[in-house]
Amino acid sequence: MPEFLRLVSPGEALAKWLSAIPQSSGLRIEEIETVSALDRILAEEVASPHPLPPFARSTVDGYAVRAEDTFGASPSAPSYLRIIGEVTMGSVSTLQVSGGEAIVVHTGGAIPSGANAVVMLEDTQDVPGGELEVHRALGIGKNIIGEGEDVKQGEVVLEPGHRLRPQEIGGLMALGKLQVSVFARPRVAILSTGDEVVPPEAEPGAGQVRDVNSYTLSALVERAGSIPVRYGIIPDQLEALRAAARKAHAESEMVLIAAGSSVSARDITADVIAELGPPGVLVHGVALRPGKPTILALCGRVPVVGLPGNPVSAIVVAGLFVLPVLRRLLGLRGPAWPATLTATLAANVASVAGREDYLPVRLEMSPEGLLAQPVYGRSNLIFTLVRADGLVQIPAEATGLEKGERVEVRLF
Amino acid sequence: MPEFLRLVSPGEALAKWLSAIPQSSGLRIEEIETVSALDRILAEEVASPHPLPPFARSTVDGYAVRAEDTFGASPSAPSYLRIIGEVTMGSVSTLQVSGGEAIVVHTGGAIPSGANAVVMLEDTQDVPGGELEVHRALGIGKNIIGEGEDVKQGEVVLEPGHRLRPQEIGGLMALGKLQVSVFARPRVAILSTGDEVVPPEAEPGAGQVRDVNSYTLSALVERAGSIPVRYGIIPDQLEALRAAARKAHAESEMVLIAAGSSVSARDITADVIAELGPPGVLVHGVALRPGKPTILALCGRVPVVGLPGNPVSAIVVAGLFVLPVLRRLLGLRGPAWPATLTATLAANVASVAGREDYLPVRLEMSPEGLLAQPVYGRSNLIFTLVRADGLVQIPAEATGLEKGERVEVRLF
Repeated sequence: MPEFLRLVSPGEALAKWLSAIPQSSGLRIEEIETVSALDRILAEEVASPHPLPPFARSTVDGYAVRAEDTFGASPSAPSYLRIIGEVTMGSVSTLQVSGGEAIVVHTGGAIPSGANAVVMLEDTQDVPGGELEVHRALGIGKNIIGEGEDVKQGEVVLEPGHRLRPQEIGGLMALGKLQVSVFARPRVAILSTGDEVVPPEAEPGAGQVRDVNSYTLSALVERAGSIPVRYGIIPDQLEALRAAARKAHAESEMVLIAAGSSVSARDITADVIAELGPPGVLVHGVALRPGKPTILALCGRVPVVGLPGNPVSAIVVAGLFVLPVLRRLLGLRGPAWPATLTATLAANVASVAGREDYLPVRLEMSPEGLLAQPVYGRSNLIFTLVRADGLVQIPAEATGLEKGERVEVRLF
Repeated sequence: MPEFLRLVSPGEALAKWLSAIPQSSGLRIEEIETVSALDRILAEEVASPHPLPPFARSTVDGYAVRAEDTFGASPSAPSYLRIIGEVTMGSVSTLQVSGGEAIVVHTGGAIPSGANAVVMLEDTQDVPGGELEVHRALGIGKNIIGEGEDVKQGEVVLEPGHRLRPQEIGGLMALGKLQVSVFARPRVAILSTGDEVVPPEAEPGAGQVRDVNSYTLSALVERAGSIPVRYGIIPDQLEALRAAARKAHAESEMVLIAAGSSVSARDITADVIAELGPPGVLVHGVALRPGKPTILALCGRVPVVGLPGNPVSAIVVAGLFVLPVLRRLLGLRGPAWPATLTATLAANVASVAGREDYLPVRLEMSPEGLLAQPVYGRSNLIFTLVRADGLVQIPAEATGLEKGERVEVRLF
C-alpha cells in the first residue's frame, strides 16, 4: 500500500535507476540516407574528407588585390590598380594578381593566386581605361575566408551520440556525406492495465472508461524519437499481466506499464516486474505529486517502469523518468537542455514540504510580461493537461510558491 | 546593392509581412486517424459526446459511504458501519448504500448509488462480523471525482488551430474520437541558386562548393511540420530562376529561395520574386546580422522569401521569418512559446547599435550555473552552428552584451 512505500526524492530515484542501466554499448546501428536523418542520433565519428571551404573565398563583392598595394589608401589619396580580369562563379581564374593589379571577384568566389585581400566594391571607383581607384587600406586576409577556416581536412566534425539537427544535416551534405550511421530507434513496449479500461473504439459500459495512457505514452515516446509498440489493455490478473510483460520484455528495449490505479493492481504490477529478471525493482514509490506510486526497475538489460494509472501522473512520470532513460537508449550523449520559459506565477500555490510537486500552468502574455496561470484539476483529469502549456516544479523543501514569484515553466 | 537597401528592424519586417498574408481561411483539411495525428493541427471543433468521467469514481481504495454517517468520527470515537458488498472494477454495483452501510470500492471504481463520499482504507479498521470502524469524518464528495468533473457532455474541449500534443491524443481517445480533421501540411518549395553550387553527390570542381541551404532549410521546414519540396540548384540567370520560381510558386504554399550570395545574384532573385505576382516584395533588407539581404514577399496568396546564401544567415532568417509564417500556413492559432533557456553570458560580445544581432552560443554547465559561450565564426561557416546549442539576440539599441549578463538562449 502506498503508505508503506519508502519514498525517495525524484532526483535520487532517477540517479539510482540510471546508475544501474548499462551504458549505450549494445545499441543497434543502421545506415540511412543523411537527407532522412533529421533528429536521429549519430553512431559514427565523422571527419572531414577535405578542408571546408575547399578554397579561399571572398566574403564580399569587389576586387581581389595584394593588400600591400592598398597601404595608405584613402578617398583623398586613393591607390590606383589595373583590372586584369574577373573570377566567374564556380571557377578558378588562371590569372595571377601581381603588384598593381586587381581582379573582379564576387561573394563566394575563389581568390585568385597572388591576391591576399579583397576590397569591397563600395570602397572603389572605376576610372576609364580599366583602372580602379581604391579608397581604403586593407590588412592581409581582409574579406577572405581561408581554405579550411570552417573545417580542416581530417578534422573530426561530429562525434557519436550527437543529434542531427538541420545544421548537422547541412554540414554533412557540405562534406558530401550522403549516408550516415545512426543508432536504431529503440522499441518501447506500452501496456495498460485495469479491469475498468476498454479500448477507445469500444463504447464503455457502466463503470468502464476508455484507455488514455496507451496513447499519451505512445505519443511521448514517438516525440522522443523512439518506436512505441502498444500491447493493449491487460486485465488486472497476475497471470495475464505476467504473460504480456514477458512478451513485451523479450521484444523491446524498454517496457512501460501504466498500472491499474487500485492498490491491488499496483501490487500485481510490482510483483510481475520483479519476476522479469534481476536486478528487478530499484525504486518503488517517489516523493512526488503526481506520481507517488512510480516503480523503476531494470530487468536484465531492459529498463521497466510502472507508471501510475492516472493520466496526468503518467505524463509527469514519463517526463521525469522515461525521457532521461530513453536518451540513453537513443544513444544520445552530452547534456540535455530542457525547453523552458521563465514566467511570473499568477497565483499562490500551496504544497506539502518533503514532496516535489508538478503544477500544470497555462501561459498568458500580460502587460507585466509572461504569466503562468495554475491549471487546477486532479491527476485523473486528462483535459487538465489539454488546458496547460507546461509544468512548474515546486521543490520538496517548499510549502508552496507565492504569486509574483519567477518560475521556470517546462514546456510540454 | 546592400548599402542602398532601406533597412527595417526584424520586428517591423515581420509585422509588415504577416499583416499582408491572408488569414488561414483557405487551408486544406484532411481527416486522419487520431493515433497518427501527433503534432498535427486540429481543423475542427471537438465537443465531448458524454461527460468525462462518465460516472462518479473513487480516487482512493476504501469504502463508499454516506458522509453523514461519519460525522464526528475519530480514532478514539469511530463510527461503525456494515459492509454490504464490493464494487468490482469495470462494473456498477446494484447495491444501494443506505444509512449505516458501506461498500468496498477501489480507486477508479464507480460510486454506488446512495454513497456520497469514500473513506480511505487507512482511515478504517475491519472488525469481525462484516463491520467497519471509520476513524475519520468525511465531507460530502470526499475522495470522489464527480461525473463530468473533467468535461461536461457537449462541452467544447478543443478548438481548431490547436496542436495535438500527447495529452490531446489521449484526451481524444478518452472521448472515443478515432478520426480527426487536421489541416494539411503546407508544401514549402526550396530553391538554391548559385553558379558555384553543386549537389552534395557531386565532387566539387575548382571554385565550387556543395549545396548546404537546400538541406538545412528542408530540415527546418520538416521539423516545423511542413513538407519540404526541393527544386534543386538554379543557375544565377534570370531566365532559369524565373522558370523555376514560377513552377515552385504554382505548386506550393510557400517558396524559399536561398539566393546566390553575390549582389547580382541577389538582384536577380529580387526581380524574379517581384514578377511572381502582387503585392510582390514587401521588405528588402533587414537591420539584422546575420541576414541583412533578406527579401520578404507575398505573390498572390503565396509567401515568398529570399534568404541570404550564407548557411548561418539562412538558418537565422528561417527561424525569425519563415517559422512564424509557417505557423499560419499550418493553421496554428494562439501564441507561440519559443523554447528558451536563461544562461549567463561567458564573455563580452561587441555589436553595432541599430542592428539586431544573433550570436550562436554553446551551453555549458558550470559551478555558477548555466553558461552561454559565444561560438565565433562567420556566417559562411556551417560548422559554427554545429558547435552551438542556440542563439542569443543582441538588441538593436545595444552596442554589445557584457560577460556575466543573463541572456535568453533560443534553443535550436
